[in-house]
Parts: sequence; C-alpha cells; structure tokens
Amino acid sequence: MVSDPAAGWSLDPQLARDTVAAGDLPLCQIRLMNDANYPWLLLVPRRRSVIELTDLPEADRTQLMGEIAQAAATLKTLTACDKINVAAIGNVVAQLHAHVVARFRSDAAWPKPVWGLLPPRAYEEAARQRLIAALRSQLSLN
Amino acid sequence: MVSDPAAGWSLDPQLARDTVAAGDLPLCQIRLMNDANYPWLLLVPRRRSVIELTDLPEADRTQLMGEIAQAAATLKTLTACDKINVAAIGNVVAQLHAHVVARFRSDAAWPKPVWGLLPPRAYEEAARQRLIAALRSQLSLN
Repeated sequence: MVSDPAAGWSLDPQLARDTVAAGDLPLCQIRLMNDANYPWLLLVPRRRSVIELTDLPEADRTQLMGEIAQAAATLKTLTACDKINVAAIGNVVAQLHAHVVARFRSDAAWPKPVWGLLPPRAYEEAARQRLIAALRSQLSLN
Repeated sequence: MVSDPAAGWSLDPQLARDTVAAGDLPLCQIRLMNDANYPWLLLVPRRRSVIELTDLPEADRTQLMGEIAQAAATLKTLTACDKINVAAIGNVVAQLHAHVVARFRSDAAWPKPVWGLLPPRAYEEAARQRLIAALRSQLSLN
C-alpha cells in the first residue's frame, strides 16, 4: 500500500481565518485572501509538518513551482495586472504557504510589497464568488 | 550550433549597485545584498528580457527552484537562522530576481518582511569577504 503524502494534513487556523478555499491543484490547496485591495492567492502544499521550501522533497518543490506559475499566469490573464509578486515568508504563520499577488501601478501599496502594509478590505460576497468561480474554471481546480 | 540562452544577458544597474557578486550557479548569478541587517542573497537568472517567473521556460523555472533551495539550505547552515524568506517581487527593478533572506527572531525587522523597511547597513569589508568566501565554498560557485 502506498501511503498518501497528504494524510494528516490540515490547514493552519490563521490561514483558514484570513482566506477562503478556491479548490485544489495536485499539490496545493488554492485559497483567496479575503482582501479586495489586491487579487491575492495562497498556495498551501497539502503536506504535513512543512515549514521551509527545503522541507519539501525535490519533486514537490518542482510541482510547487509549476503550480505557482499556473496561478501567476491565471491571475495575470484574469486581472490584466502590471506585475505578479510571489513569496514564501512564513515569519508569522509557520505552515509553508506561497503568496501569488496581482499588483497594479494604481493599487494602494504600489510599489511596496503588500505584507503588513494596509488593513485587509473584505470582498463583497458577489465579487468574491465571481473571482473564485473564474479561478476554479481557469485553473481547473478540484 | 546551439545558441547560448545566456547570450546578451546583463545585470540591471540598480541590482549591480545594491549587491556584490558571489559567483554563478548553472542558471543564476548569486549576489549578496550589501546590507548587514540580514544575510540576503539575490539569485538572478542569466536570461535576457525575463520579468515574470512565467517568462522563463519550464526547465529554467525548475532549475531556479532548485537553486533557490540550494541557496536557502546554505544560508540556513551558515547562519543558523530561524527562518528563510523567499520572494520574487520586481515592482521597482523589473529584471527577474529572487530574494533569499536569512531571518532571525532577533533581527531589526522581525517578523515583518525586509523589503523597504530599514535603511541598508553596509558590511564591513572583512565580514563581507568572509561571508562571500563561505557562500562560494558551500555552493561550489563558479
């Protein structure tokens, strides 16, 4: 029997509070940050006890890069943004998660990075549902 | 004749001003940010006209992830840091470059991200040379 590498995985409670699930790619759960200031995705590998990128086996790291690229290309297509920002920081929430953020020269933080800069502005429910539906469709999320 | 994908590559002038070369891995030039607040590397793929991760072909993206992991593991070994931060932002300097930063709970910015937070504090020459020599040796840089 092959063990399931996702067995026993669970989402960090703070990530759960700040984001909403859009669906799954083969490695990561894709979540939308509940912050209408910027279209902002989190990719959370469904693996237990992973904090640093280097905690992932090489095949998972390669898959993560592929999924980041998919998420980046999709956000760029959906939003026509000026730049994509990508990061894995994890100083506050240890569970490994990659940020993929669509940035605009007109956004409230430009050109600064988004982390810790502005208070989050919650989506209106209809706008959030539209964005999640578009992400699910474009990324073929499960 | 196979064309050299690094042909015509040159480093962005602002990156050149802010950092010093440590050496080359197969894809990236590895550079040390001249900021003694945090051990901070830049990985710059030697490819022309690349801004977003998605501008790189898939093989280069996989190689970039591998070199980020090498740089992260080496910084962690050399510095015994508490966390590694990784990012590709590029809102100010367009040329694709990945940050790999060693963070400490005791550093001046913790737990905030480092970008744009504190004025850079230049290394003393001897300390910088020691760190670069250690990086060159541990990463087997050319």
